[in-house]
Amino acid sequence: MGIHQYFKSLVDLENIYRCPGKFKYQEHSVAEHSFKVTNIAQFLGYVEEQAGNKIDWRVLYEKALNHDYSELFIGDIKTPVKYATEELRGMLSEVEESMARNFIKREIPKEFQAFYRHLLKEGKDQTLEGKILAIADKVDLLYESFGEIQKGNPEAIFIEIYSEALATIYEYRKLSSVKYFLKEILPEMLAEKGINKTDLPELTADIITRALKEND
Amino acid sequence: MGIHQYFKSLVDLENIYRCPGKFKYQEHSVAEHSFKVTNIAQFLGYVEEQAGNKIDWRVLYEKALNHDYSELFIGDIKTPVKYATEELRGMLSEVEESMARNFIKREIPKEFQAFYRHLLKEGKDQTLEGKILAIADKVDLLYESFGEIQKGNPEAIFIEIYSEALATIYEYRKLSSVKYFLKEILPEMLAEKGINKTDLPELTADIITRALKEND
Amino acid sequence: MGIHQYFKSLVDLENIYRCPGKFKYQEHSVAEHSFKVTNIAQFLGYVEEQAGNKIDWRVLYEKALNHDYSELFIGDIKTPVKYATEELRGMLSEVEESMARNFIKREIPKEFQAFYRHLLKEGKDQTLEGKILAIADKVDLLYESFGEIQKGNPEAIFIEIYSEALATIYEYRKLSSVKYFLKEILPEMLAEKGINKTDLPELTADIITRALKEND
Amino acid sequence: MGIHQYFKSLVDLENIYRCPGKFKYQEHSVAEHSFKVTNIAQFLGYVEEQAGNKIDWRVLYEKALNHDYSELFIGDIKTPVKYATEELRGMLSEVEESMARNFIKREIPKEFQAFYRHLLKEGKDQTLEGKILAIADKVDLLYESFGEIQKGNPEAIFIEIYSEALATIYEYRKLSSVKYFLKEILPEMLAEKGINKTDLPELTADIITRALKEND
Amino acid sequence: MGIHQYFKSLVDLENIYRCPGKFKYQEHSVAEHSFKVTNIAQFLGYVEEQAGNKIDWRVLYEKALNHDYSELFIGDIKTPVKYATEELRGMLSEVEESMARNFIKREIPKEFQAFYRHLLKEGKDQTLEGKILAIADKVDLLYESFGEIQKGNPEAIFIEIYSEALATIYEYRKLSSVKYFLKEILPEMLAEKGINKTDLPELTADIITRALKEND
Amino acid sequence: MGIHQYFKSLVDLENIYRCPGKFKYQEHSVAEHSFKVTNIAQFLGYVEEQAGNKIDWRVLYEKALNHDYSELFIGDIKTPVKYATEELRGMLSEVEESMARNFIKREIPKEFQAFYRHLLKEGKDQTLEGKILAIADKVDLLYESFGEIQKGNPEAIFIEIYSEALATIYEYRKLSSVKYFLKEILPEMLAEKGINKTDLPELTADIITRALKEND
Repeated sequence: MGIHQYFKSLVDLENIYRCPGKFKYQEHSVAEHSFKVTNIAQFLGYVEEQAGNKIDWRVLYEKALNHDYSELFIGDIKTPVKYATEELRGMLSEVEESMARNFIKREIPKEFQAFYRHLLKEGKDQTLEGKILAIADKVDLLYESFGEIQKGNPEAIFIEIYSEALATIYEYRKLSSVKYFLKEILPEMLAEKGINKTDLPELTADIITRALKEND
Repeated sequence: MGIHQYFKSLVDLENIYRCPGKFKYQEHSVAEHSFKVTNIAQFLGYVEEQAGNKIDWRVLYEKALNHDYSELFIGDIKTPVKYATEELRGMLSEVEESMARNFIKREIPKEFQAFYRHLLKEGKDQTLEGKILAIADKVDLLYESFGEIQKGNPEAIFIEIYSEALATIYEYRKLSSVKYFLKEILPEMLAEKGINKTDLPELTADIITRALKEND
Repeated sequence: MGIHQYFKSLVDLENIYRCPGKFKYQEHSVAEHSFKVTNIAQFLGYVEEQAGNKIDWRVLYEKALNHDYSELFIGDIKTPVKYATEELRGMLSEVEESMARNFIKREIPKEFQAFYRHLLKEGKDQTLEGKILAIADKVDLLYESFGEIQKGNPEAIFIEIYSEALATIYEYRKLSSVKYFLKEILPEMLAEKGINKTDLPELTADIITRALKEND
Repeated sequence: MGIHQYFKSLVDLENIYRCPGKFKYQEHSVAEHSFKVTNIAQFLGYVEEQAGNKIDWRVLYEKALNHDYSELFIGDIKTPVKYATEELRGMLSEVEESMARNFIKREIPKEFQAFYRHLLKEGKDQTLEGKILAIADKVDLLYESFGEIQKGNPEAIFIEIYSEALATIYEYRKLSSVKYFLKEILPEMLAEKGINKTDLPELTADIITRALKEND
Repeated sequence: MGIHQYFKSLVDLENIYRCPGKFKYQEHSVAEHSFKVTNIAQFLGYVEEQAGNKIDWRVLYEKALNHDYSELFIGDIKTPVKYATEELRGMLSEVEESMARNFIKREIPKEFQAFYRHLLKEGKDQTLEGKILAIADKVDLLYESFGEIQKGNPEAIFIEIYSEALATIYEYRKLSSVKYFLKEILPEMLAEKGINKTDLPELTADIITRALKEND
Repeated sequence: MGIHQYFKSLVDLENIYRCPGKFKYQEHSVAEHSFKVTNIAQFLGYVEEQAGNKIDWRVLYEKALNHDYSELFIGDIKTPVKYATEELRGMLSEVEESMARNFIKREIPKEFQAFYRHLLKEGKDQTLEGKILAIADKVDLLYESFGEIQKGNPEAIFIEIYSEALATIYEYRKLSSVKYFLKEILPEMLAEKGINKTDLPELTADIITRALKEND
């Protein structure tokens, strides 16, 4: 029982790959995903700040860095559960949280348990930082699916993931950071070589058009 | 919707690795595990038959070959859930079965749905074939953990897996096939190079001693 | 000498990859191939049974599960031997069988030698089960080459493998299971995304057309 | 030119492995290392805060998350340069920084250039946050070398890395977070299975003894 | 200190991958690259010899086989340094050479130091053998980038590498071996399946046209 | 048909791994093996030259570089064939040579066929260069098995390979290069960390003792 077990568990996050059970050209570990989400959140937070919004940076980094730690307990199974109902998702999420609580109780020294309960609780709340986490998580998912589609992955699931991720990002289109993403970053992504031969431009077109109009 | 989707899904079982989140020297896919379990069951069934018991071979092969197909739906997460309670395990198993039913309904043509519901139902029942499946599943798990321990894997989980697997096998020690396993195969395994420097001989000793005495 | 050596050798089949010496997006071990062939045979057998033919299921499973075990001895070299003559192939097959016999003699306990000689003998004979094995083996090969072609593999060998596998399957077109495959499964495969831009539809067309006509 | 290029470059950090040119049982990408360093810094920062020191969390997270981004430009080559002199190391570091500046100028939009110049500048300064970064970087390096030594890696370089990392951590032994590390975490690490048969306890002993005495 | 260290270091060249930090469908180690460059140089040398030029074969093989040994010291970082200036490249090359000298002094026995200083010095000089090395190195680089482009790699860097490699080869177009390459090998490469849909034919066309005209 | 096919085939040698079907901590491709054998032969040749023997360097490099090219045709299957008789090995070697001849006839342009027939013929003859190839091939095999044994690989086959390789090298103990190997390199290898806990020192002792006595 001790922080050594916690430090070791970080390595275990290198041994869990995202979206298991599907062929991918490039694998991404949960550790790598968490690194990228935190970086993306850092950029989105800066855009919000430039737009005059107040960011609690400590909170934002905490949320982003630790948001998938509990995947240690049941693995990365949320994405491909296309046969799961809402109720099943709820059950899985409950299982995950329950295991996280058990882990903290058994492995983390008493004086740090409150800190880790705080770090490992669900971060996607209605605060600006919680929203940025939700967006950053989807932006990285979008990039993961984009990377597979661009490389020629024929699995339909990556189109589904791309669509679902973009739709979620779009829900936050009132945020300055999402405006920037839709106006500047997404078009640059779609201008990448070979993308014009895929389904992505059509899929994406309506959403962008609307987003740009509304946000002008 | 069609058998093509089912054939493709078999490849997905090559993309799910057993015991995710733990460092291993050698990975095993769920497809590979299923192949070995079926082979082990084939041997155990033959020993039972030689001992005068009747084996329904079709049933035995069906149970062994298909016993982990539903891991497609939530992945191989049963082994490392050491922080899970019995209730949590029950919930997970329910989720898995529910997703399997949904998969059959959506992807398998009507005329084959009954066949696949039969193949994908829980195989570990109280028939001789059900018991052989339970044993073969644990024998392969024993070999997986043995392989890691022999190669020098320092993760404590492999000792736990070895112990749990052997204990379960031992519960079936009245069966001729398990007698043969305990008397002939296990000692040969423990005589492997380097094993005398590990914890395995001590761990194993009591169980074997008792097994051999009772079964003489 | 003992069954422990046999159980260990099953793991070695995870360390032999199919079609060595060619770039592949996705590797398949001999263990994984054997798992899939057995699953495909299980489906084909069921179709035959539904059509009123008698299947000896034990025999069918034995043939499918063990059909490539002897690749342990000289590896998976049959596929890419485009520079080999018929005579050379014969020699290779002789070498393989001879090594399998030596293995059984040295490693398998006397009381099980007859069983394993039976399991490891060539399974592709003129029985219905032997034919189903031959078909299932080619169906999985077809899927392997299809998977590479769909992902964009430029190696010409995968087109050759696809053609050779389909031609062999087509030879069995009188069987109900092959009729089903040609009428239902193959069209679904060719309807997959991106396949219309490959050479597969043209390659496949003549064969299907004839098959469907004859079998109506 | 745009943030899309920056987001894509984060994936490139998944394709650079630490300590290239040496056999390892487990590879770690620069992205994974950055994730772990940020997590470790988060813990060390919390210990400092509990000890009454003020942490600028934004600064700490910025330093930790981005400290190895410039490895994109000449790769992770600092560790194994045992044939390099101090002067050569200086030259390498200069090259790296110069390429980072060129990258920002060419790829990052004007309005974000100042922000990224800030994020990518050398973070290991004399502030408390700079020190925590230096320590966290070495703690993860210590864990990487520890992991290889524990798994039986015979390369002498991992002993060298372990020693050099621990010596650097020890230089900061006046800090509360390092006291905690030396008193609680390191002993727990050395109590791991199999470590008593390695050179680590002896190597470590003197340093700990002294550290504990001085800090009591 | 001894030749054992040198022999072991050859294995380290298997652990350095070319063009790190970029997604590739197929990785190539520095050892593999060196093998291919030596083979290509062997062919080019033969063409020169057939054309009546004298080849010092020992010198040619020495140059080709050992040309990248010093990548052990700072890794394979020359290719993707698009953010490096000419001056920075010079500095990197100086660092590398300096480390190679240190390695020889410390690890190679006195009686072999002169031999290895000879083998590890820069081989791309103005002799025919030096030119063949320069060409062979670029031919393999061309094949590496070609392989990625043909498999659908969307990273722009492989187009840049292809162009730069071909341009360098073209500078040597007066040599018989390069004439053969441009007239026979390159067209065969561009006739490969799927290449007509890429940018390569256009990119290549002008250069070939000119080369063929001049050399008729 | 052309040299392009030959250049492409060199990449295929990166896709064939040595000693398939056995767990290894570190894989080595046939391309990597060929690179190392050529390097080792380069060293051994230099020792012979220093001892006053004449080396035909072109011949030596040709033999070493190309000695395993024909593994393209039936893979690397010679090492683990412990169930093969001498006659079976002969048959395999015949098959391999025959396929190499077919390859040259179909893929290599007429004007280069004689050159490649020369390069691809069996190189291990009774010339000094042929002997150096035989030794260098075994030295690399010795290093491969040594690497696995040192890392803790429990497979008995690596002890067998080590013994067989060393015994073959020892047969050439009259050669100056082998004297140097036995007197200087092998002891340095056995002085490596952890080797004193393996079977290697005992296995090696008798042979060295005798070798050193005879050669003093």
